Amino acid sequence: MSAPSKTGTVYGLGLGPGAVDLMTVRADRLLRGARHVAFFRKAGRSGQARRIVDGMIPDGAVEFPMEYPVTTEIPLSDPRYNEILSEFYADCTAHLRALAEAGEDVVVLCEGDPFFYGSFMHLYTRLKDDVPVQVVPAITGMSAAWTATGAPITWGDDVLTVLMGTLPEDDLARRMADTDALVVMKIGRNIDKVRRALKTAGRYDAAWLVEYAAMPTQTVTPLADAGDKITPYFSIIIVHGQGRRP
Amino acid sequence: MSAPSKTGTVYGLGLGPGAVDLMTVRADRLLRGARHVAFFRKAGRSGQARRIVDGMIPDGAVEFPMEYPVTTEIPLSDPRYNEILSEFYADCTAHLRALAEAGEDVVVLCEGDPFFYGSFMHLYTRLKDDVPVQVVPAITGMSAAWTATGAPITWGDDVLTVLMGTLPEDDLARRMADTDALVVMKIGRNIDKVRRALKTAGRYDAAWLVEYAAMPTQTVTPLADAGDKITPYFSIIIVHGQGRRP
Repeated sequence: MSAPSKTGTVYGLGLGPGAVDLMTVRADRLLRGARHVAFFRKAGRSGQARRIVDGMIPDGAVEFPMEYPVTTEIPLSDPRYNEILSEFYADCTAHLRALAEAGEDVVVLCEGDPFFYGSFMHLYTRLKDDVPVQVVPAITGMSAAWTATGAPITWGDDVLTVLMGTLPEDDLARRMADTDALVVMKIGRNIDKVRRALKTAGRYDAAWLVEYAAMPTQTVTPLADAGDKITPYFSIIIVHGQGRRP
Repeated sequence: MSAPSKTGTVYGLGLGPGAVDLMTVRADRLLRGARHVAFFRKAGRSGQARRIVDGMIPDGAVEFPMEYPVTTEIPLSDPRYNEILSEFYADCTAHLRALAEAGEDVVVLCEGDPFFYGSFMHLYTRLKDDVPVQVVPAITGMSAAWTATGAPITWGDDVLTVLMGTLPEDDLARRMADTDALVVMKIGRNIDKVRRALKTAGRYDAAWLVEYAAMPTQTVTPLADAGDKITPYFSIIIVHGQGRRP
């Protein structure tokens, strides 16, 4: 960089679980001073990250929605899935890089914590060698979920395992049986498989379903009582550890 | 409660990893308006939680340090350990309950996220049936640690396992080999055991040591280069997942 003092910074701005006052002071300050605000969304939707910060973006700031070309329409196993997404991330990156090179700071809104199963990392790895990128960590959705249950997730020397509901059933069941505390994410369309795996592992009756953690619509229900209707995206399953407690 | 509107609330206030501007907006607001501020510390020390908020506690607020009667002097296996700690938590609880019953709100400072391996949970379980208790979640130390490494901890369907260095070596090694992404905490005096377990699991060369994440003294070092000097308390080991990335 010949004139580094003029290059802008791309911020991966962790928003946390969704309550505006659970954003960090740093994220709040950066957002309220932003001139360029980028965010992912599904085509035709307003986007959850953008919704969280409604009313916080300064007048005159330029918004840059990045619309996923595919999400669930093409199976992950199809090679086109990775190709299409890769091209999409390259396009987004080109825009953000151009802004930074023109001296503009850009805030990229990230639900949860950017480096924990986030989409921002796909931009981060493509940008970090070219322009300054700073990641602002945030409260994970799972922290909000276990807080919502009103009981600690881990005590003493408890082992915590975080699993995606997309994993094969036998792998899920084996790992669920072999941990103290458990978090399961991405459970929407995998819920039946996740239920069976929890039963096989003997953890079903101790499992809680948290929907929309830290949002006004938050619900906390024993999984066994949750019935068939599970929110597709914002659901997290929690099984608490039972470790040492004086 | 005969007059619930007069009863105060005890707040388990998550402070996050240690940088003041990584506190949430909610925690910042509650702290700056606090009349009673309680915190744990080791006898003779200022206490890390209290240090984080230096300069933020309002003039005139009453501070209540809760000094651990033992920490590492008595082995965990000694039955006196649990007895002494249990009595200590009961004493702290009595004081906080009395304040709340007198109509006072109390903020209890908690490093990291209160429900994630925190000490606050020992007060929470003793208070929650008697007076209103609210837990304010926060960024975990491990989030700050993986952010500090400049690389995402988990991608795609990665499994994340969180282990305490206090576990037996063979259990550590087995679990380290059986996960994608890995976090090891409480490593201070267990560092030699943790190193051996990482080597057995084939993860040693991919491990990072993060000390004082998000604090001014933060360091990030490949564990293999870290030498023998490890900060006793604020060290976290990170091994990144390598999952799907378009």
